[in-house]
Amino acid sequence: MIDKAILLIIDGLGDRPIAALGDRTPLEAAHTPNLDRLATSAECGMMHTVGRGVRPGSDVAHLAIFGYERSLYYPGRGPIEAAGIGVPLEDGDVAMRGNLGTVDDKLEIVDRRAGRIRVVEPFTKMLDGMEIDGVTFLVKPGTAHRAVVVMRGPDLSAAITDNDPHVEGVAASTVTATDDSPSAKRTADALNQFLARAHEILKGHPDNRARRAEGLFEANYILLRGAGQYRRLPSFKERYGLDGCCIAGGGLYKGVAAFLGMTVLDCPGATGLPDTDIRAKFDLALESLSEYDFVFVHVKATDSLAEDGNFAGKKDFTERIDEAAAAFDALPESALLVVTADHSTPSELCAHSADPVPILFHGQGVRVDGVTAFGERACTSGGLGFITGADVMPQVINLLGRSPLLGG
Amino acid sequence: MIDKAILLIIDGLGDRPIAALGDRTPLEAAHTPNLDRLATSAECGMMHTVGRGVRPGSDVAHLAIFGYERSLYYPGRGPIEAAGIGVPLEDGDVAMRGNLGTVDDKLEIVDRRAGRIRVVEPFTKMLDGMEIDGVTFLVKPGTAHRAVVVMRGPDLSAAITDNDPHVEGVAASTVTATDDSPSAKRTADALNQFLARAHEILKGHPDNRARRAEGLFEANYILLRGAGQYRRLPSFKERYGLDGCCIAGGGLYKGVAAFLGMTVLDCPGATGLPDTDIRAKFDLALESLSEYDFVFVHVKATDSLAEDGNFAGKKDFTERIDEAAAAFDALPESALLVVTADHSTPSELCAHSADPVPILFHGQGVRVDGVTAFGERACTSGGLGFITGADVMPQVINLLGRSPLLGG
Repeated sequence: MIDKAILLIIDGLGDRPIAALGDRTPLEAAHTPNLDRLATSAECGMMHTVGRGVRPGSDVAHLAIFGYERSLYYPGRGPIEAAGIGVPLEDGDVAMRGNLGTVDDKLEIVDRRAGRIRVVEPFTKMLDGMEIDGVTFLVKPGTAHRAVVVMRGPDLSAAITDNDPHVEGVAASTVTATDDSPSAKRTADALNQFLARAHEILKGHPDNRARRAEGLFEANYILLRGAGQYRRLPSFKERYGLDGCCIAGGGLYKGVAAFLGMTVLDCPGATGLPDTDIRAKFDLALESLSEYDFVFVHVKATDSLAEDGNFAGKKDFTERIDEAAAAFDALPESALLVVTADHSTPSELCAHSADPVPILFHGQGVRVDGVTAFGERACTSGGLGFITGADVMPQVINLLGRSPLLGG
Repeated sequence: MIDKAILLIIDGLGDRPIAALGDRTPLEAAHTPNLDRLATSAECGMMHTVGRGVRPGSDVAHLAIFGYERSLYYPGRGPIEAAGIGVPLEDGDVAMRGNLGTVDDKLEIVDRRAGRIRVVEPFTKMLDGMEIDGVTFLVKPGTAHRAVVVMRGPDLSAAITDNDPHVEGVAASTVTATDDSPSAKRTADALNQFLARAHEILKGHPDNRARRAEGLFEANYILLRGAGQYRRLPSFKERYGLDGCCIAGGGLYKGVAAFLGMTVLDCPGATGLPDTDIRAKFDLALESLSEYDFVFVHVKATDSLAEDGNFAGKKDFTERIDEAAAAFDALPESALLVVTADHSTPSELCAHSADPVPILFHGQGVRVDGVTAFGERACTSGGLGFITGADVMPQVINLLGRSPLLGG
């Protein structure tokens, strides 16, 4: 009987047939003996993560797979990014993600990423904790030029515009309310005051004087987007009774996991890029089964390569995932392994699509079907049929023998 | 990358196995090399247009395929027929379809179709624009004995009975309200007054005196049914961003298309009957891709033949459709072709049924599956699995690369 589970999500793995690959998808064209062997001893199927015809973003797709339906639980990107960098959120907080950028004397944006500055912590710490009109501003560094701003106080609203115009050569936008509520107006007003005051503080920062002397772009302005309001939600542990952990390179995926209360593990070599150490992730996943009931492992670069239109790179990277999947030969008998993707990213579309993705459940008790390859078309004849993301955790819980009984 | 689409709906194509056809359906028994070749290079599946176990009318079925769910958008038959003959409807209008019929001096119905009179425009124009109690009556000719009546004014309701008793030898029914609302009572009252006044005008019409002299049935009474209230709804263009057109012989299908704001094209030779020029429709569909993003083509007679119990005729007509489908050899690479039916019409049932219908998506980017024939059983193993009508447009939009992103 199994009592633990590993869920491997290969980002944007699904694709469409490509003529140059012999009318096969990158996954179908890739040499994947390990994934195919897993599929052969698994129950397979196809998944429309959110629903047929729906093209999900990665955040919404992951939440769906974990059983958190968008309309009830999706707070927008800001709170997820905040969770990802370890900011504990309180009910009602409004969180935004953003960059430190460079403006000139006329407040026009010269560089949206301050010359891709590598560390912003010296700047954010000058602003962190500022209070304006009863609102406390938490300002935390993300990776490289990125930062997160959290507004905390009574009666805030996320119904506000970005101040990041997403282009250079224009002034940063004034934040405005997007509905008629007093709370939205109050939030926009406080944020505009904060942004002006932050600019005054940043432009006088000694590190910026140093950057100016070196001919580098100064980190003298905060550009924000994706405001979302945090509302307390049942954690993954409260929902399923499972101690969960996350092994990922990309910040968003750590963010989703942290947002649901999973422990985000540090995995040296996990970068979220094509150079990531996939085997290190899979080995850590297997090790983590001793401490956690549920291990979420995420691999990112399949998606990024497809968004660049690089189907050959996606195929090669898929083969590297397969090679690393030899690690799962050591999967204990007591563990379930689920392998799937969060959505398709067709390489010729260079974007997410609504096409379904393959999924396999491998472990004791599954009804092994006749599928012998892990692929978009091979899995259409699998025993699971067509499922949605919302079906994944209930099936995990079912196989773990932990489903609540409905009725008597 | 595809950017246009043709949707071919073959009315009532689905059927059940028939002993005289070797336990095959008419579609399975028909020699259909062109449809089978399309299926071979397509992704196939089965469709329950409205849902499993639901037996849809053609209007509801077509609306479902276009993504307009019945409970939200189906106005009843009247407004669709009105749209089909080009009457621009306003919010709140109550529309009914009907016939000009013949009553005797005791107001008993002698002939429900006035001897299948071929042109009613001389009669309807005498009534068009009449005002009663603040309600304007628009009275428009349909094909042959058919007409449409639209009531326009404040506070109307479609909760009224037909005055057409659907049999001869009895008096036309008095219209009554079917709920307790004042608006239904007011609508029924105004309509009864209109019907009485229309009879007075029609019986004195010179053309009726001429008909009487020739021994023909007079067009001296209006028999109405299918009252429905028009409510403004998002057009097909607003919904999907696609300029749509319709190529059909049957009035109902033109009506559905016009109701959704598609352009109804004139196709010489398209009759909606077994004698229709199918090839002319398919050729026009291909030509129309230069001007429209989405071409809806409808072929009717498969349904009518099955409703007559003529399975051999249905099989033969299906072979004629297949022959005309050779036109799609000229389908441009940039176009998607979807072939399906609106519902099944089993020939031995002589009526619509809830049985699913085959569907195929053919064009760049589709995940071609192993199905090699377009048929009710062949398509059950297709890569799409089992879908509903509501899944069709999202998949079209997905393949066109136009799906909105949900989340970030």
